[in-house]
Amino acid sequence: MRVKIREAKQKPVGETITLCGWVRTIRKQKSFCFIDLNDGSTLKGFQIIADAQLTENIHTGTSLRVTGEIVESPGAGQSTELSAKEIHVFDPCAREDYPLQKKRHSAEFLRTIAHLRPRTNLQGAIIRMRNTLAYASHRFFQERGFFYINTPIITSSDCEGAGDMFQVTTLDVKKGQRDFDDDFFGRQAFLTVSGQLNSEAVAHAMSDVYTFGPTFRSENSNTSRHLAEFWMIEPEMAFYDLSDTMTLAQDYLKYLVDAALTSHPEEMELFDKFVEKGLIDRLTKVKEKDFKRMPYTEAIEILENSGKKFEFPHEWGCDLQSEHERYLAEEHVKGPVILYDYPRDLKAFYMRNNDDDKTVAAMDVLVPKVGELMGGSQREERYDILLEKCKAADFDLETYKWYLDLRQYGSVPHSGFGLGFERLIQFITGVENIRDVILFPRYPGHCNY
Amino acid sequence: MRVKIREAKQKPVGETITLCGWVRTIRKQKSFCFIDLNDGSTLKGFQIIADAQLTENIHTGTSLRVTGEIVESPGAGQSTELSAKEIHVFDPCAREDYPLQKKRHSAEFLRTIAHLRPRTNLQGAIIRMRNTLAYASHRFFQERGFFYINTPIITSSDCEGAGDMFQVTTLDVKKGQRDFDDDFFGRQAFLTVSGQLNSEAVAHAMSDVYTFGPTFRSENSNTSRHLAEFWMIEPEMAFYDLSDTMTLAQDYLKYLVDAALTSHPEEMELFDKFVEKGLIDRLTKVKEKDFKRMPYTEAIEILENSGKKFEFPHEWGCDLQSEHERYLAEEHVKGPVILYDYPRDLKAFYMRNNDDDKTVAAMDVLVPKVGELMGGSQREERYDILLEKCKAADFDLETYKWYLDLRQYGSVPHSGFGLGFERLIQFITGVENIRDVILFPRYPGHCNY
Repeated sequence: MRVKIREAKQKPVGETITLCGWVRTIRKQKSFCFIDLNDGSTLKGFQIIADAQLTENIHTGTSLRVTGEIVESPGAGQSTELSAKEIHVFDPCAREDYPLQKKRHSAEFLRTIAHLRPRTNLQGAIIRMRNTLAYASHRFFQERGFFYINTPIITSSDCEGAGDMFQVTTLDVKKGQRDFDDDFFGRQAFLTVSGQLNSEAVAHAMSDVYTFGPTFRSENSNTSRHLAEFWMIEPEMAFYDLSDTMTLAQDYLKYLVDAALTSHPEEMELFDKFVEKGLIDRLTKVKEKDFKRMPYTEAIEILENSGKKFEFPHEWGCDLQSEHERYLAEEHVKGPVILYDYPRDLKAFYMRNNDDDKTVAAMDVLVPKVGELMGGSQREERYDILLEKCKAADFDLETYKWYLDLRQYGSVPHSGFGLGFERLIQFITGVENIRDVILFPRYPGHCNY
Repeated sequence: MRVKIREAKQKPVGETITLCGWVRTIRKQKSFCFIDLNDGSTLKGFQIIADAQLTENIHTGTSLRVTGEIVESPGAGQSTELSAKEIHVFDPCAREDYPLQKKRHSAEFLRTIAHLRPRTNLQGAIIRMRNTLAYASHRFFQERGFFYINTPIITSSDCEGAGDMFQVTTLDVKKGQRDFDDDFFGRQAFLTVSGQLNSEAVAHAMSDVYTFGPTFRSENSNTSRHLAEFWMIEPEMAFYDLSDTMTLAQDYLKYLVDAALTSHPEEMELFDKFVEKGLIDRLTKVKEKDFKRMPYTEAIEILENSGKKFEFPHEWGCDLQSEHERYLAEEHVKGPVILYDYPRDLKAFYMRNNDDDKTVAAMDVLVPKVGELMGGSQREERYDILLEKCKAADFDLETYKWYLDLRQYGSVPHSGFGLGFERLIQFITGVENIRDVILFPRYPGHCNY
């Protein structure tokens, strides 16, 4: 019976099993040879020992099916191995131009073969970790009675008001000069930057909901922290104030860190050894204590008194840059810190005005290594104030009528936040470039595969 | 302590709890009144009994927080109720134009207030069911060692070759006459119709993977079965042949049906009573026996010998229409049926050629009520044959080079299928129109909210 390598490692000596996979390495001796076979189910493959005559057509990359008996392994590094009785080669992968010959490849080179790079140890580990963090996200919210919902990807409203949106059209782009009345939706349509506004509507009936879906920004950003297409998890909770939301964000992040550390000791060791020294220690600390909470105003004072030279300004009213966020998390707090009560002018129209007449009930979770990892707020639930904010932002009130309706028909205090999933994976794995934690990254000039 | 209504129903008499939610109905008597409060966590709300003086500003739709003591309920329909001590009204929802006054509303009307319709019994039930089916999908694949992956939404390749794709652009659509070199990605880009081609690349390293993400078709279809934006679950398995894939598809669908029936008895009763009489019986049958498997050629013979009048032709080589699919599933087999080995000309380029030189190793799962629910195939893993098929389809070989690479470097037999998530929800709930099983439907001329 065919089993995955992950299961094969649990099988007792003497059992006959069948494995399928790809050859990572092969060491030929005179009369027999050792094959390191991998099927993606674990970091470390399974060692096959086979008569030389069974392995003539086998190379790095060969796909095969092997049946044999589990035996004790005399070698170091594994307790059992498979003594091959029968090997079927699907494809020898004998071409000399196979790009993944046994040696280390740079991240830049691997990005040019994104269709093959899942076969490397590091990318395989990232894929397994990504899976674990996605599933842990669902478990976390399901255990708390949240409902998973799908908000629209194609939208006619701009949640953040930032304008960096891709257009979606069936018009002939080269031809031009046509009216959006003729377009598929009869109006101009975009790719969403956030499902939040829609989630708010659903939270006004279901209380606690969350999305997990793709979001888009057409910013021309060529940094190691930005993608044109990325995935977000966005919980939205009726009857939560900002403080409840900070607690939820903290519990969620700790849950994710715990899932990473306990589900993937082998992968964590790889990341710690080859990607970021001290990673396991950094993450273990996140689990241990409550996240520091700090008003934006206090953070500005700390930056002013830090004696550090920053590239960007940091007086009150300035948007914090990555350098500021990382200083606060890495050097000042030495762990995650939740900043809150940001200047109103820095934040989106839907955030709830504080009574001080200058800040809003916003919060960002800043973490070492990544800077801002989550951003959230209590939403403005008062109709008159929200209407003023929409007007001040120069919105088409007809487009936002439905959103304002929520404040007229059973309005409630409510809050939510968003977690950028790729930034989370950077945070957990230590990988520097966001293009290496998503399978097929999209960024300016790049839409291959 | 605030609890959800779902939990409140388990609380013992005598306990003091706090509930938050929205008033569905209020019945005022002389000195006290009954409130049916709902927070979305269950179909049936919690009954509040309160002194009349506490409820002066309460109407249908009012949002409130109530603290009280659980008491035995003398009325029919619930065993406990809450005797209110304190009620805080967030928003009275006193406007007479609140569209959800107590009466039945048509599905058509509710679609015009998609931001409010989650507050209805039926939509709430659909949202809870959708959540359960999504989470059950993750559980099913995770239990079997599959990895959840995110394939790109913005793409430069057309998986199905059908051409019904939305364009994604940052060019000025009205202006026109510009070159795609100037576009964000430096080339023409589209919204994906399927993550399959990308998943195949990952399956060649990780063995078993699945996606759960949005897909798009710009077909001008105004039917009760089509959306411009819908969600798909697409597993892709290395080392699976077509028969393995049929077994997986069957196991998966049975798992989903079981999750629906066991997790949501109240909701199923609602669907059975008000949406489709006999629904529970229809679904229970799906669980009970293996799905019939039938070659396409045999299905054509059955249609020819049926004596039925069909609108569309049904000789060998014809694409089956919904009327044919439903006849086969509903009247002939009286349950799910898996058709396989379809004429090559009907199916996509990537499907594996059979030895008969006229069919491919494709399969569709047809079910009563919906017709085609899942479609899959064994993929062509032989380089030379796939290259010929790409040429015959007139593809730009440079664009598909990476896909062909998979057949040169460790190619393996592999297979997969796709499940349209909204069609699944139609199948499970009996809801006729696909626009009513997704929160904010997108279809020609409609991109509101």
